[in-house]
Order: sequence, then structure tokens, then C-alpha cells
Amino acid sequence: MTAVTGTAARVDVNRTGPQPVRATLADGREILFFSAGEPTVPGVDHRDLPPRPAESPTRLRRDPQIGDWVMIAPARQQRTYQPPRAMCPLCPDPDGRSSEIPAADYEVAVFENRFPSLSTAAVGSGFVLPAATGLGIETAGYGRCEVVCFTSDHDGSFARLTAARARLVVDVWAHRTADLLARDGVAEVYCFENRGEEIGVTLAHPHGQIYAYPFRTRRTAGVLGRAAAYRVDTGRNLFEDILAREVDGGERVLVRTEHVTAFVPFAARWPAEVHVYPNRHCRNLTELTDPEADDLARAYLTVLRGYDALYGAPLPYVASWHQYRSAADGSGPAGDEAEGYLHAELFSIRRSADKLKYLAGSESGRDAFVTDKTPEQIAAELRAAIGRSRRLG
Amino acid sequence: MTAVTGTAARVDVNRTGPQPVRATLADGREILFFSAGEPTVPGVDHRDLPPRPAESPTRLRRDPQIGDWVMIAPARQQRTYQPPRAMCPLCPDPDGRSSEIPAADYEVAVFENRFPSLSTAAVGSGFVLPAATGLGIETAGYGRCEVVCFTSDHDGSFARLTAARARLVVDVWAHRTADLLARDGVAEVYCFENRGEEIGVTLAHPHGQIYAYPFRTRRTAGVLGRAAAYRVDTGRNLFEDILAREVDGGERVLVRTEHVTAFVPFAARWPAEVHVYPNRHCRNLTELTDPEADDLARAYLTVLRGYDALYGAPLPYVASWHQYRSAADGSGPAGDEAEGYLHAELFSIRRSADKLKYLAGSESGRDAFVTDKTPEQIAAELRAAIGRSRRLG
Repeated sequence: MTAVTGTAARVDVNRTGPQPVRATLADGREILFFSAGEPTVPGVDHRDLPPRPAESPTRLRRDPQIGDWVMIAPARQQRTYQPPRAMCPLCPDPDGRSSEIPAADYEVAVFENRFPSLSTAAVGSGFVLPAATGLGIETAGYGRCEVVCFTSDHDGSFARLTAARARLVVDVWAHRTADLLARDGVAEVYCFENRGEEIGVTLAHPHGQIYAYPFRTRRTAGVLGRAAAYRVDTGRNLFEDILAREVDGGERVLVRTEHVTAFVPFAARWPAEVHVYPNRHCRNLTELTDPEADDLARAYLTVLRGYDALYGAPLPYVASWHQYRSAADGSGPAGDEAEGYLHAELFSIRRSADKLKYLAGSESGRDAFVTDKTPEQIAAELRAAIGRSRRLG
Repeated sequence: MTAVTGTAARVDVNRTGPQPVRATLADGREILFFSAGEPTVPGVDHRDLPPRPAESPTRLRRDPQIGDWVMIAPARQQRTYQPPRAMCPLCPDPDGRSSEIPAADYEVAVFENRFPSLSTAAVGSGFVLPAATGLGIETAGYGRCEVVCFTSDHDGSFARLTAARARLVVDVWAHRTADLLARDGVAEVYCFENRGEEIGVTLAHPHGQIYAYPFRTRRTAGVLGRAAAYRVDTGRNLFEDILAREVDGGERVLVRTEHVTAFVPFAARWPAEVHVYPNRHCRNLTELTDPEADDLARAYLTVLRGYDALYGAPLPYVASWHQYRSAADGSGPAGDEAEGYLHAELFSIRRSADKLKYLAGSESGRDAFVTDKTPEQIAAELRAAIGRSRRLG
């Protein structure tokens, strides 16, 4: 695992994206409002919140056996757990007394998580991740955790957003990626959505999250390691070849447009696993052109609408964006991240209408997955579900 | 990931363990009965089972992005799912008509899984894992999956076994490890127990499983990679140093006997995570002396009894044994596995009396764990629970 520390990264934003209206919550956390239409007018957060802790409330410890960083966040025991609807912290709150979002309404709102796994508190820009050797390595839980509210509609879902709103969310993710990657000590920016009580979601209001990690995660390290080895073996980019092979074969492709391809991967580990790639090699969302971002938002919606049609009920899922650092000047390599390829990986833990996939001994103990559907079966079922969702509308 | 293929490994069994009575089930699968007392007398399996498939019913595909092998086992869709008690396939069946175990009673029974993730069918000893490069790599799901029944008592649990029975199970695991590691094409032998409906266990009768993988799993590859790097850095064994550090500090130690130590690890990722080490560096269960095996069985029981006292209800858990290959002559190194250190890792998904830990975006998408208890809190709670379980008896 290579840790990237203290890098003053610059990320070129090739598109001019939406600029947020910024405000501050009662305890000093930042909130950003993004709009495609009229700018949101923030209200005042009148809540009597305890001040944020002067030190990061979380710690990082390095597992000496495997090298992973573990985030230890005891304050998260107090986090809001399935509140009644009237107390939803993600609904707009014109009075600034009951939710995290002091505004009469909003399009997309982003704020710092009140119960974060990582925090910038007290560490400032001086954070340096300790060296990777030795035992007993512990440090402050530096980083940033953001909540992204996709809509003010409590009963909505990402799948039911309009294409324009989905595109705005893509632009918001790009904005946050550029902003967070540019900060000292941030190694990796991770946009994701957990959806469904079955995977432990504690707030029903449609939202995703962003983690700015101060370390390179094990998955990212593993993928970049494979891509580097593939380059040595073949002289080619791993992900370009994966995409070309899927498009050639076609049997697992779900969506193919001018700019984007969605497919069930050759070695799908999860029920309903789908990967969504731009057709052109980009490192992250900030590199997309306007037409590419439009296509990506639409393809992503198509997959999510197919998800909910698969068993005729909202599908629990994780949507996991893989992004890498652009070169400082937007062209040349950015270390080993130059091989990285922007894409989304979506998967569910629902393996049939009435059964869940559990991670047990082989998966959790050995990282060795067993699946009971072939990727081709998964693709056929999802293709049919996408067809049904299109007919429904 | 280094794949070990076609190795005709020899494993020294330093102790003389129990030898099984062998029999054959109606479809040709092997069943083994182990006893500390009188040998079990197998009956005849009279069931009209379909013959085992001539080819392995499972396939392995290599994930080109990360290098993992994924086991694709569509036949497992038909596996027995929470049968009524009278149809329990793991209860003794004197008539040989209703369960997998044709015997009036048994102590410990081991048989090949009827719905395996890996199978020796049709591949025989000629299996060679394909080279690790390239895309679209697929091969037969070679290997072996065994079910280990710890007791004939349907309503029992591992925690409620006697120390003598727990010791017999340790000996059975050692026997199976030696047998399976010696087979061509087996890279890794993994003994584990999944316990609890909350983690998807489909049969209530107390049992564990053994997977003989034809590949080195990602977790094992990662751990051995760290151990090799640690040897280069320090000239020492990683696990010996981890154990020494835990014993020195003591704040996370739960059980410490002459031969065995159980502790919450420094960077526990899971609720109630406990590691159980022999105090002497052994690669696998076959290397233990009699007193070490006795101590290990007792310490393991102590932890499991503490688990069930933690919230006053059966705790869902995964118990995951880490074993490595002994040198052929029982002394020198066995490749990079010589650095490996036999131990058990136990963990739960229950993070409080009424809440589960779910693996969501950060864990499943990035292998980056967030916990909401410090390892020291976990140790204090488990120490108190072990105390309660001892007073209860």
C-alpha cells in the first residue's frame, strides 16, 4: 500500500461546473448548496449544537497483519438512527431548528457529517500519515466525511431523479472531488451511496456520502497494482482492455451509448454487480466533457431503475465510484494513478426476491467470494429488468 | 497473489491424532466419523440422490481488476435453506433415509458438501491453476468443501461443547488440514465456522466448514506479504512480535495460559474481534503438542462462552482459522509460508445488543473499515462477559 501524504495536488476542472452557495452550521460545519436553477438562499441554523471537538474525534490505527488503516470513531455510537420522519435531518428546514439543512428548499446539498469517520478538526494542514512500518502505529483520524443530499424529497430515490438532477449530482461529485483532492493530506476521494435498511442505512432520505481518506485504501492499492503489472506485461492500460473485451463479447453489456458502457463484469462477486465506464479513459469526474457527463448520468439512472425493477421492490445497493488523481497539468501521468480509470461499481446484497447474500467465512475471513449466479445470468436478468423499467416509464 | 499449484505437499503430523471411520454417501461423497471413545458404526445411506455431476459444478473466474479468484456455483441456489428440524440434514439418521449422516449417533462427523463451492469432480489430480496474467481467465472450480458437525445435538453450540469434545474438534481440523494440504492442487486449507442466522447460516445444527482452495486467497497473500516485508525490515517474525507486544501491554489480553493467548487486536476491524495464538510459533494445527492443543481448545471455548454472555443471547460470529504449510521435513522453511503463524480470528457483526455492523460503502467498496468501539473498549466488555460466563458455569 502506497500512502500519499501531504500532496498539494492540483486538479484541472475541464468543465465549468456549478458553483455552490456556502453557509455554516451552528457548530461550525460547512454546508454547500448546488443548484441548476436559481441559487438556494440558506437560512440560519438556530440549533443549540455542542461545539465540534477541538481534536479529531476519530483515530486511525494500522493493522500490522495486513497493513490496512482502520478508522476508530466512538462518537459514531451516538449517530442518528432511523429517526421518525418529522425529525429527518436531511429534509429542508426553513426554521433552522430541526434538521441539518437550514433552507426552505434545496436541489443538492452537501455538508460535513456530524458523526464523521474522519475529520479535519485540530489537525489542520499539518497532517502527515505515519510511515508504514512497525507495530502500534496510531494517528489522528484526519480526513473529511461529507453527506450529499440528492433531493429535498424525503420519499424519493436516486433512481427517480430526473436526468437533469442526476447530471447535477455528477457535477457536484466532480466539484467535491476537485476540492478535496486539492487539500493537503488527502490521498483518495471516494463518492458512494449506500441504499436500503438491509445494508444498514440509518436515514431513509435519499443521500450519498463522500470520504476524503488520508491513506490509499486497500482496494485502490490492489487495483493500481494490477494495472501497473498489466502495463509491464502488455504495454497497455488494463481498464481500456477490460472495456474493449466486454464490448467485443457483448453478452454482459447492459447499456452502450456514444460515451458510456455499463456491463456486468466477467468475474462479478456480488449479486446484480454492474460497472459503468466512460468510453474514453478519464481518471475522475472532473475530466468528463459535457456530453460524457450527460451520458454517464443517464446510464447510471438506467442501471438504478433496472435495479428497482429486478424484484419489483427497492433494491438495497452500494454504488461505489472509483476515481484517481489527474496529472497536475491535465495531460501527463500522475504517478501510478495515471493507469486508473474512472468508473462506478454498483452491487447489491439481495441475491433473490427473498434472500440476501451474506459475507461469511470465505468472504469476510479470506476475501474469497462465492456467487450462485453466473455473470451472464445476472446480465440477462438485469437486461430484462431494465426493459421493464423503461416500459413502466 | 502467488498461486501455489500442483504442489505435492507433505505435512508432518507431529501428534498421533484420532483416525476416522470412513464411509460413502449415496451419491459417492465421502463421510468421516471421528471419536474420542468407541468408533462410530456407520449405517447405509439409502437416499435416492442424483449422482454427482461428472464435471465440477462450479467455475473459477479471475477478476482482472484485482486479481482475486471468484467461485461461481449456480448449483448452490438449490442448497438446503433453513429446513424444519425434523428434516435437519446434520442430525444422526439411523435409517439412512433423511439426513446426510447415516448413523445412530456420532461424535464429530465430516462429509463433502452436497452443494459445494469447490469440487474435485472430474478434475482429479491433474488440476493446474491457470497463470495469473491476461483477461477472461476461467477454469474448473477445483477444490474441496467439507462440512464438520461438532456434535449430534441439534440444539447445542460450539460454546457448549465439553473441553474434551472441543479438543476432538481441534484434532479433526488438524487431520483434515494434513489430508487436504497433501493433495495435488490444493493451495490453502481453511477451517471456519459461521454461526447465526444474522450472517446467513442456513442450517441451525452446530457445524463448521472446511474449504480446500486451489488458489492462495487475497487475505492470506496480503498477510504473508506483510510478514515478508517485516522480516526484511526487522529480521524478525511479524506474528511473534505482534503477540509479544500484546502480552507486554496487556490491556487487550483476554486469556493467557502457558501455551495460548487470546486478545483483541490493536486495530480490530470488527465488533468483538478476538485473535487466539499459540504462544509458540506453529504454522498449523498439526504442529501443536498435546498440551498446546488442550490449551487452545480451552481458550477457544472461553472466548466463545464469553461471546454468548456479551449480550445475553447467542452471538452471531465467524471463526476463521489461519494456517500455513509446514516444511516438508517439519523443520526448515516452506517458502514464504514459513513466516505464517497459526491462529484463529473470531469476530461478530453484532455491534450492540440491538444493532448490527453492516459492511457498506467504505468496507465493501474500499476494504476500509470504520468501527465505533475502541479495541480497549471491546476488550473490557469481553473480559466482563467472560467473567459472567465463568460464574454461570
